[in-house]
Amino acid sequence: MEMAEIGKTSENGVTRAALSKEDGQARDLLCEWAKPLVDQMLVDEVGNMFFIKKGANPNLPLVLSGSHLDTQYHGGRFDGVYGVLGVLEVLKTLHENQIVPDHGLGLVNWSNEEEARYCPAMGSAVFSGKLTPRQVLDCEASDGPTYGISLKDIGYNGEKITPSLKVKAYLELHIEQGPVLENEHLDIGLVTGAQGQLTMDVTIRGEAGHAGTVPMEMRADALSCAAEIISQCRSKVLKMDQGVMTVGKMEVEPNSRSTIPSNVVFGMDIRNPNTQSLEELKNQFITEIASISQKHHCSEDIVIRSFKAPTEFDEICINVVESSAKKLKYGLRRMRSGAFHDACMINAIIPTGMIFTPCLKGVSHHPSEFASQGQIFRGANTLLHSLLELSQKEKVRP
Amino acid sequence: MEMAEIGKTSENGVTRAALSKEDGQARDLLCEWAKPLVDQMLVDEVGNMFFIKKGANPNLPLVLSGSHLDTQYHGGRFDGVYGVLGVLEVLKTLHENQIVPDHGLGLVNWSNEEEARYCPAMGSAVFSGKLTPRQVLDCEASDGPTYGISLKDIGYNGEKITPSLKVKAYLELHIEQGPVLENEHLDIGLVTGAQGQLTMDVTIRGEAGHAGTVPMEMRADALSCAAEIISQCRSKVLKMDQGVMTVGKMEVEPNSRSTIPSNVVFGMDIRNPNTQSLEELKNQFITEIASISQKHHCSEDIVIRSFKAPTEFDEICINVVESSAKKLKYGLRRMRSGAFHDACMINAIIPTGMIFTPCLKGVSHHPSEFASQGQIFRGANTLLHSLLELSQKEKVRP
Repeated sequence: MEMAEIGKTSENGVTRAALSKEDGQARDLLCEWAKPLVDQMLVDEVGNMFFIKKGANPNLPLVLSGSHLDTQYHGGRFDGVYGVLGVLEVLKTLHENQIVPDHGLGLVNWSNEEEARYCPAMGSAVFSGKLTPRQVLDCEASDGPTYGISLKDIGYNGEKITPSLKVKAYLELHIEQGPVLENEHLDIGLVTGAQGQLTMDVTIRGEAGHAGTVPMEMRADALSCAAEIISQCRSKVLKMDQGVMTVGKMEVEPNSRSTIPSNVVFGMDIRNPNTQSLEELKNQFITEIASISQKHHCSEDIVIRSFKAPTEFDEICINVVESSAKKLKYGLRRMRSGAFHDACMINAIIPTGMIFTPCLKGVSHHPSEFASQGQIFRGANTLLHSLLELSQKEKVRP
Repeated sequence: MEMAEIGKTSENGVTRAALSKEDGQARDLLCEWAKPLVDQMLVDEVGNMFFIKKGANPNLPLVLSGSHLDTQYHGGRFDGVYGVLGVLEVLKTLHENQIVPDHGLGLVNWSNEEEARYCPAMGSAVFSGKLTPRQVLDCEASDGPTYGISLKDIGYNGEKITPSLKVKAYLELHIEQGPVLENEHLDIGLVTGAQGQLTMDVTIRGEAGHAGTVPMEMRADALSCAAEIISQCRSKVLKMDQGVMTVGKMEVEPNSRSTIPSNVVFGMDIRNPNTQSLEELKNQFITEIASISQKHHCSEDIVIRSFKAPTEFDEICINVVESSAKKLKYGLRRMRSGAFHDACMINAIIPTGMIFTPCLKGVSHHPSEFASQGQIFRGANTLLHSLLELSQKEKVRP
């Protein structure tokens, strides 16, 4: 709640866009809290922050955990922050109880996870080698300055550290951002991976006309056509028993009560845990859109905006989280993340796992984002026991 | 084309909103052209203009014909104007050929047919007793001043004339504003009546959520719901073999690619030549909207905006137009007007008919509205012969 004061907006909202003044203040506060608990702090060239508590055996690789302090515009108090402050609580507990595990333990604050000002997950993308530091530093914000300039402004432009930092495993604690755990009255979501995501923009072109005078069979009604496409594509997704589809954005032209719509543009967001299913859906949708458009005397234009393959988290990480939560007698279930997280990036190079906790009505990216103290506690406690397990035994491949 | 210079916009468009300066100029030009051809000019208290050529027998009621000079914003050159200038051409022909029919002949320019600034068809509504002059004069324009003030500004505020003006029959010549005649290569549409019209606003309320994290079965997706409603209601209309349905306007909230829509508002415009069918559709739609909303975990709110009963034009007027067009060997068909016209108002008190002529691709209320000289000529010629027939014999009940 103290962190949520930085960038606080109305109705408990938080605006702490990446590399903004508020992001800088949040980073300063994290330093103030974390530095006394660790042996070393590192900042890399794109602003990722690492707080490292050395292990009993300094030659062993680190166990890393964290998330991000930046938020969406008028976002909530838990998304990202919870995963950073959860590790802070773990470090505090180790400190207070004078526990020194075999492996060192690292708290990480990934720079710019949300896409409020830049592209999403740029800090973790550099760490995992998906983007070069140069690509990130030159990226222009939606409100002007480059990533590099903004980073320097808040004083978190560090140095190249990746080759020297050896990491054994990465865990990320996060609110679910969906309603499943709350609905099933569970404490912990054992995240086995993240759905793949396909986004596309569909434009349907028909012909405008008078709503009274053009007979139905002579119309090229772009909105009727779009409506049938949405209904039919949705049916296909419902038949698949997993995955989701959303049409969140739609624009109608000329958007007049008594004129047949000439043009409709809508965005489709399709997510599925299975790469093959996602590919199949893509092909089925393209065929379906063309055939429905033809039926409506309309033409179609489809632009694929993005394709992200599904993520499969590491089996050993999943098992460690499972045994920790079971030992603590928490209600848990396996589940997929519907959203993208830094963990999906890191998974490409380091054995990775995630822990989900319930949030109120599944709401996120909104001021009403909420999780109770009890829910927050059980998530952090599961993280503590999982990190201890990972940092004390050679369970995970280095 | 000379009249279309008044209020001319780009791409052959015309903006001559009711009671604007341009409407005043168009009225002035009409006076200049029509006055030399007639014996009397009258203007009533809401600005309807009548140019009267006396008949051989001054005790017989008038045969009236006309339409309107006002246009939509950025409308076309033919809608309305054609029906006024068509009668002007008839008066000119009578004048040049020194023909004096038994009944007098009246050219009328109805005041404010389009709903560019006020409600539609207000002049003809007063003439037919549907609205009082006071209701019309006090009506506020979308851009400020009342009807009464604007009318006075252009100098066409006249006096009460309705009880003294006896009318036997009314004919209106108009472009079809639809594609049927052009498509069937016909010259004349014998308009038997106008469709009834029902308009309603439908609001679907669901719940916003993350496009990736909320499982399909737990969603209340307002846009999926609206899409299914549009598709299902459209199917019902297609099964009826007459009538049309249009959803022309739709707003989606929050209208973000990765958020499940919480709110969708759309307008439905349903037209049918049969009152009972229109009533049945209304009831079926209300039931259907409720049932689909429930299926999608959404709630619905339906506001009926307007209900206009279908119009049946006078059999004798229809027969006179038919025999005139046949005598001239023009290709013709019976048809319904999909749009509303002053003739639908006048039909309530005077035996009324309409003549349609083709227009390019059925486009209207748009700068590309077009009809060829040949099409325009054949319509006006049919009007001439019909008006002569009506004004020379006692064919229509007084």
